[in-house]
Amino acid sequence: MARRSNSSRTASLVERLRSLWKVKNSALVQQELATEYPEDLAAALERLDVEEGLQILDKLDSLQAANVIVELPTETARAYVKHLPDAVLAAYLDVLPMDDAIDLQEELEPERFAALLEVIPDEDAREIRRLMQYPKGSVGRIMTERFFEVGPLTTVQQLLEDLRSAPIEKYETVNEVYVLDGGGFLQGVFSLRKALRADPSTTASELMKTDVVVASVEEPDEDAARRMAKYGFYALPVLDERGRMMGVFTGDDAQTIIREAETKDVLALGGVSGSAESYLSLGVWQLYKRRFPWLLALFFAETLTGSVLRHYGQGDDSLHMNPLAYYIPLLIGAGGNSGSQVTTTITRALALQEVSPRDWFMVMRREFVVAVIIGACLGTIGWLNAYFRWQSGSAVSFVVGMALPAIVLWATTVGSLLPIAAKRIGIDPAVMSAPFITTFVDATGLVIYFEIALHTMKAHLM
Amino acid sequence: MARRSNSSRTASLVERLRSLWKVKNSALVQQELATEYPEDLAAALERLDVEEGLQILDKLDSLQAANVIVELPTETARAYVKHLPDAVLAAYLDVLPMDDAIDLQEELEPERFAALLEVIPDEDAREIRRLMQYPKGSVGRIMTERFFEVGPLTTVQQLLEDLRSAPIEKYETVNEVYVLDGGGFLQGVFSLRKALRADPSTTASELMKTDVVVASVEEPDEDAARRMAKYGFYALPVLDERGRMMGVFTGDDAQTIIREAETKDVLALGGVSGSAESYLSLGVWQLYKRRFPWLLALFFAETLTGSVLRHYGQGDDSLHMNPLAYYIPLLIGAGGNSGSQVTTTITRALALQEVSPRDWFMVMRREFVVAVIIGACLGTIGWLNAYFRWQSGSAVSFVVGMALPAIVLWATTVGSLLPIAAKRIGIDPAVMSAPFITTFVDATGLVIYFEIALHTMKAHLM
Repeated sequence: MARRSNSSRTASLVERLRSLWKVKNSALVQQELATEYPEDLAAALERLDVEEGLQILDKLDSLQAANVIVELPTETARAYVKHLPDAVLAAYLDVLPMDDAIDLQEELEPERFAALLEVIPDEDAREIRRLMQYPKGSVGRIMTERFFEVGPLTTVQQLLEDLRSAPIEKYETVNEVYVLDGGGFLQGVFSLRKALRADPSTTASELMKTDVVVASVEEPDEDAARRMAKYGFYALPVLDERGRMMGVFTGDDAQTIIREAETKDVLALGGVSGSAESYLSLGVWQLYKRRFPWLLALFFAETLTGSVLRHYGQGDDSLHMNPLAYYIPLLIGAGGNSGSQVTTTITRALALQEVSPRDWFMVMRREFVVAVIIGACLGTIGWLNAYFRWQSGSAVSFVVGMALPAIVLWATTVGSLLPIAAKRIGIDPAVMSAPFITTFVDATGLVIYFEIALHTMKAHLM
Repeated sequence: MARRSNSSRTASLVERLRSLWKVKNSALVQQELATEYPEDLAAALERLDVEEGLQILDKLDSLQAANVIVELPTETARAYVKHLPDAVLAAYLDVLPMDDAIDLQEELEPERFAALLEVIPDEDAREIRRLMQYPKGSVGRIMTERFFEVGPLTTVQQLLEDLRSAPIEKYETVNEVYVLDGGGFLQGVFSLRKALRADPSTTASELMKTDVVVASVEEPDEDAARRMAKYGFYALPVLDERGRMMGVFTGDDAQTIIREAETKDVLALGGVSGSAESYLSLGVWQLYKRRFPWLLALFFAETLTGSVLRHYGQGDDSLHMNPLAYYIPLLIGAGGNSGSQVTTTITRALALQEVSPRDWFMVMRREFVVAVIIGACLGTIGWLNAYFRWQSGSAVSFVVGMALPAIVLWATTVGSLLPIAAKRIGIDPAVMSAPFITTFVDATGLVIYFEIALHTMKAHLM
């Protein structure tokens, strides 16, 4: 019964799925995986090949398969959805709660999603279209319209009757009962518990609390999610600009939104751009795309220091400086920035349990490839900058062009292994953090730089 | 009705409290503030003087006042609790849920808390002592024992009866019904909603789902909170090592724990140590204590670069370097680190809405004072290091000792104003992030360094 989501659990589920994907008998597979949560299956699927995963999905019933797809990180889900036939996707859309169905839309081309809406039941399609009118990132887009509403004069007896007889999917959430007047305006709210403790003839308006914390359809979902967390609520009623209640913003969505916003902010602190994608679902090329633009921008910003150094150091006075010194901030900056990008990414993935220390080799292999590409790009740009822009001569330019990739590779290796090692021996990886790694790479990076310089100068007899 | 927690709301509540604290009539104050949420009152109290706040608290009824104290950041709560008489604190303890009461313990000296436990009702005191046996940071410490439990053979009719007749404080949460056998072992769980839809004679064991996601009393609260969020639940049953159910870990606590863990990790990324305290509740001295140790450690780590530079640059060969260059990484490192400390802190406070752009002057004033103290310390240490350890001569040592505080002040000013300015004009402050500010301060910091050098060298005719 005790279920703990740790890495060994995911690893063993991956093994079980690997042994199951070739099994022909769907009923057997369904039975075997019936009690698994979609979140766990999604985590395991992320580590399988898409072909294996598709075989598994194909054998699950639509509801379970659809829920697994929804729990997959966007990039992985996109890979799966591309291979799934329309009939299957329509079946998924049909069984999913509306906010999850809209989630699926982000992984499909717009035309394909529009086509799917044509084949699912009309009422569902209308609801999806209605919610999709709200801007991306707004509360309206992810609220559920299936909340439990009563009139001010509804009695406890009546509302319990309604709860019993209504189809289960009519309400996504019933713990809070919302009181709306004839125009759809929110009058108040009370808990189902309070209703259960009241006399059956009590009316909603007698039970309700009128001072309600609300969200608005148009407001950014992160703001509403933070408000919900601040007050410790699990749901917020969502009003339009006139005060009519349009839906409920539920706590599970709020938690996801906050987690993704935090991830985005943390990565931005480390100089990594892009949305909150799970580490493993990103390929080498995607990792590169999220890091290189920032590194390049910071590289050119950092060339400012070179201009400052040349300005003061070119004269023959007491400030005169060896041209090699011009490149010191640039080199340690590039090392520090690429190191903190990796450290921040890995530390975050460890905190969210997307990777575990046992994944160290896979992480290092991926990061090595990314570092080689980034190093080659930065090295070329650094060489061009030194030779043509700053006219530092062929020897110094060569040294800079060689030192940059070497330092980037070194910083990346340190930056990816240190947090994993910290976690492994039980230290909070956040302590092995960006400033620490930056500082460490500063000194060691300079050793790399000067060793390359020494050998080059000897060879050139400069 | 529409209640949005934004800065103008807090500001207007502060104004109202300022106009109320001298009012003698408690009933009037209570009535005026009756519908305010404790979270809002706490945010406002943080901006009042303690004497004003105490007057307000004194006039509220115990339950509301106690809830406000619990919502205050630890440091602010400590300041209040010091001034509150034992009788008042005992009244607070009495009305608070147990996990909040334990929270209060962190703000009291152990002896005072023990004395308070003697005067509150026995049963409450026993419950508090029981929970306090679990280690700090464990799930056991913050779970509630007041969950809704039934036996496997309890019928729906019986459990609804129990829900109606039990005193309201007997259960903190009833949306999930936990099925325990005679030995207290968890058998399964079902939702209250499911019970309401079932025939009154249905038994608990017929309704329950046996595959339950659980937490354990001893496990770190952050792990359990992340698991709850992953599965989108609002509560987890907490088991002891033998599988007996000891309590429920609720979603509001989980949200707080995740938020504080995120804050700690984010601050660590910026090189700030310490727990997740709200920005405004920390005094200048506390801000200093959370930053200076890291800066000092990083400063000494960064002196390694100086050793590397001296090692390669002291000879008469092609690598020979002006001693002023030895200090470049040290100076830009100190500027970058102090800048990112401030940026990270302010960006986080903005994200959590602890400060708003309208607080810019207060933020800058505080940060200026902190920067002056840090700059003076680092400047002295930098001068001593240059003069005695690296024997760079009086002129260079003087330049370093002067440049360090100037760069720290400059970095702090930029680091505190940029995120606020970004927020003000509608850019996500996280984008004005640490690497950007570090790079910007690198170049401008070197200008400061060389200008000081130029003027000093002229004066010394070195």
